Amino acid sequence: MPENFADRLIQAVKAKKTPTCVGIDPIYARLPAEITENRELNDESDSEVALDAVLEYCRRVIKIVAPLVPAVKINSAFFERYYWEGIEGYWDLIQEADQNGLIVIGDCKRSDIGSTAEMYARSALAEPDFNDMDSLTGPDAVTVVPYAGLDGVKPFIDIAREEQKGVFVWVRASNESSAIIQEVKLESGLTFAEHMAQQVDAWSRDSGLIGSTGYSTVGAVVAARDKDSTARLRELMPHCYFLVPGYGAQGGTADDIVPCFKPDGTGAIVTASRSVIYAYEDMKYIERFPSEWDKCIEQACKDFIADISKVVRIS
Amino acid sequence: MPENFADRLIQAVKAKKTPTCVGIDPIYARLPAEITENRELNDESDSEVALDAVLEYCRRVIKIVAPLVPAVKINSAFFERYYWEGIEGYWDLIQEADQNGLIVIGDCKRSDIGSTAEMYARSALAEPDFNDMDSLTGPDAVTVVPYAGLDGVKPFIDIAREEQKGVFVWVRASNESSAIIQEVKLESGLTFAEHMAQQVDAWSRDSGLIGSTGYSTVGAVVAARDKDSTARLRELMPHCYFLVPGYGAQGGTADDIVPCFKPDGTGAIVTASRSVIYAYEDMKYIERFPSEWDKCIEQACKDFIADISKVVRIS
Repeated sequence: MPENFADRLIQAVKAKKTPTCVGIDPIYARLPAEITENRELNDESDSEVALDAVLEYCRRVIKIVAPLVPAVKINSAFFERYYWEGIEGYWDLIQEADQNGLIVIGDCKRSDIGSTAEMYARSALAEPDFNDMDSLTGPDAVTVVPYAGLDGVKPFIDIAREEQKGVFVWVRASNESSAIIQEVKLESGLTFAEHMAQQVDAWSRDSGLIGSTGYSTVGAVVAARDKDSTARLRELMPHCYFLVPGYGAQGGTADDIVPCFKPDGTGAIVTASRSVIYAYEDMKYIERFPSEWDKCIEQACKDFIADISKVVRIS
Repeated sequence: MPENFADRLIQAVKAKKTPTCVGIDPIYARLPAEITENRELNDESDSEVALDAVLEYCRRVIKIVAPLVPAVKINSAFFERYYWEGIEGYWDLIQEADQNGLIVIGDCKRSDIGSTAEMYARSALAEPDFNDMDSLTGPDAVTVVPYAGLDGVKPFIDIAREEQKGVFVWVRASNESSAIIQEVKLESGLTFAEHMAQQVDAWSRDSGLIGSTGYSTVGAVVAARDKDSTARLRELMPHCYFLVPGYGAQGGTADDIVPCFKPDGTGAIVTASRSVIYAYEDMKYIERFPSEWDKCIEQACKDFIADISKVVRIS
């Protein structure tokens, strides 16, 4: 197996023949009735009971999607909701996804400066270095916020270099209100997102980061908005793999994401979360698989992959 | 006790006659020998042993500073370092600080969009709403990162409004490399930090947020850099209390922080972390209190308060 994270990601994408990733954002109130109607898991007001139900569901989702996609993105916030027990559950799911052969992206959007960023990098990305945590595997990559510039990101990059992991720097968000930050025009003529992309490009070229495929350990979270602006971000960060949110429930279409990719089909991995993991709420799937929530998720995942394959060919 | 967070903060500042806050950023390797030489706490390679030492130290620090300052800022990253047990410890310290009559600021710098930001706001700021967590008290306020605009901050503001808590939005960081983001010039002529300040100002004026003292539930993290730029940020956010990092170990002086305050001495609370909590590493204190680490911390905290009182008068 190649050591560089981007090389490993590309290998996994080629093995599954799809540049897709399922995002795991579990909410108790939306879990399938089959799980929450279990007497022992039917109490949203008790954190341990609710968390057990959430974890049972997430383990099932991971097993359903593992044969189909190369990667999962596990969203830390939805586990932090259950306090420390939730964090233990988040780590359990990292192990589960890893054991199912998936690339695991921890979506934790951490950010701070100096020694604080070092602590976040060590806890969120590194392989646990305590004797009593020896059996745990950390995620393959995490998302980070670049609000304080390089200082806040460097500890993550250093660990990624040492431990052959990946960092996705949040360059452009998928929500409307982010435009007030990310689309603001600078004196230089660039948008703020383009300026940020220039920084991330520089960081991605640091020594020891670029793998045999030409991609760096340092990637970027880039939401697909209008095609021209996405194409500019693609040009500005030639060595960065893009992690692309916003497909499906957030309104993004396969067509929108085309400029995230290079002509050879590399360069991006597209994430769908709610449109896949809650497919059993969608009449399109309910009609086909009444009361088989797992089949709904499997079919929605296959449909997501097919939709992306219409616009991106993996060679 | 006033209900609005800013009113409560001002009341606490007046009661202690100082606009200061001690930051709690514990690192095992820097703990006093008295603690780590205890046979049971002397193993940095075991996460539970190391965490127990860290928590023992933090509880002592809280008790030392509680009679002196109105607030503590507990830095989540330094507890996340110990995984889920660390988060449980972070919550234990929130209880400890609260029981010692301190305003508790959770420095967690969370950031994301939509339903993810809601989850972070609920877990990081709200009073726990699970039956089995009923006895826990949440922090009085937290720090957040505004990288995705209002969407990422609004769930925190909503909880702050409902539960009479506070939100400090990270406007300007204290580190050098943040200038590439925060000092960049926009087409409008503003710096990015000034543009961000305009957004935070608008958010701070939303209904139900401004208390009887004229300050909002929505404050800002503003590092003191050159005095002119700090004065502009003060003008741009008249209703925002500033949480000011960077004093002491990071090189900020009392003089630098003057423009964070309004002429009446309200408007800011200054944080010192390492210069206080590791004072027993400083020859100035060691000479005076050899092998009395707690006395060193107490004296450094008093010196910090005296230094700030030279430039800001609390009426």
